[in-house]
Amino acid sequence: MHHLYPRLVVSVPEWVSDLIDASPGALRIPEDRMRLAISLARENAARGGGPFGAVVFEDGSGRVVAPGVNLVVPLGCSLAHAETVAIAIAQQAIGSYDLGAPGLPTMQLVTSAEPCAMCLGAIPWSGVKSILCGATGDDAEGVGFDEGAKPDGWPEALAARGIQVTRGICREEAAAVLVDYARGGGLIYNGGRGTAEAPSTTGRIGRDHRP
Amino acid sequence: MHHLYPRLVVSVPEWVSDLIDASPGALRIPEDRMRLAISLARENAARGGGPFGAVVFEDGSGRVVAPGVNLVVPLGCSLAHAETVAIAIAQQAIGSYDLGAPGLPTMQLVTSAEPCAMCLGAIPWSGVKSILCGATGDDAEGVGFDEGAKPDGWPEALAARGIQVTRGICREEAAAVLVDYARGGGLIYNGGRGTAEAPSTTGRIGRDHRP
Repeated sequence: MHHLYPRLVVSVPEWVSDLIDASPGALRIPEDRMRLAISLARENAARGGGPFGAVVFEDGSGRVVAPGVNLVVPLGCSLAHAETVAIAIAQQAIGSYDLGAPGLPTMQLVTSAEPCAMCLGAIPWSGVKSILCGATGDDAEGVGFDEGAKPDGWPEALAARGIQVTRGICREEAAAVLVDYARGGGLIYNGGRGTAEAPSTTGRIGRDHRP
Repeated sequence: MHHLYPRLVVSVPEWVSDLIDASPGALRIPEDRMRLAISLARENAARGGGPFGAVVFEDGSGRVVAPGVNLVVPLGCSLAHAETVAIAIAQQAIGSYDLGAPGLPTMQLVTSAEPCAMCLGAIPWSGVKSILCGATGDDAEGVGFDEGAKPDGWPEALAARGIQVTRGICREEAAAVLVDYARGGGLIYNGGRGTAEAPSTTGRIGRDHRP
């Protein structure tokens, strides 16, 4: 008898595609790129998701390669932060696990808030050559999100790997999304803290589970 | 005209299910759990994948919740490390983004090698309450894998979050998988270093891409 494990399907909601389609085809200015990430964050929060958005751009042309929003709750996946979703979709779009592979345009990750420890660790493996950050880690922690343990001097450590970090782009607009989310009573869904509701499938845990 | 981005589908190969099915239904001893993760690592490498394996267990019963292997190359996804795959599949199996949600058995992540910076950052968000590690970070770096920038004292930092870390379980067996992989000429696929071949879909980058 063959055992099958469930699979995870990561895709961006249709409204995300619509929002990108409604934006200009090329965004050459950092602030314009950031405002697109912030608009994803704000719209995701308005739809009940986490208040985070990210976009992978072709750095030279300013074209969008892939967007991402926080999908932790809808996907049931603690890994599905805006940055990791954008990276995953971008890699599927180009057909490589390395956005820095030979022959590709240089890629940039733009994120509405500084990466948590997981996303920070994911950035060097992704192949992007630069990141733009909006809200700071302090802004995120200020409303209750856990950033995790990031090494001191992480921007300099990324720079030493050839990944340039620019922080605080449109910080006020980006931080406002977090503050509004918290004021609106949004779920601060830090994993492993018992913030999740009890799953409805408890009886199906383990190797006896069939998808 | 509606723009669609590609999706990422994360699932474990059939041989992984078969290997888990062929193991005892409950593994109560740490070394037995680790040997299962190591066997996943060894078999994945033998099939052309990365030499890493991981398993989420119910800590009390020793039942497997979900296995994971490194799928970076086959999935075209730099995020698909053994640990993140195991966490993602486990969360799909239980139906929650939090393996520590109320009503669930306590979960443990067993990994054939110490987590890289990304996987380390992912662990607190996952909801597991303990991790067992086989090969050390030095073992992985010794054969050329990049571990990323991990904060000093990361085991203690996880412990302070209520996640117990045990290192060096079956270390020699676990490290031997890495050494054999490197000796066999296996690809050391550190992202962003130009180790990937040029993708065949270069012409399809950006918002004009249709999946």
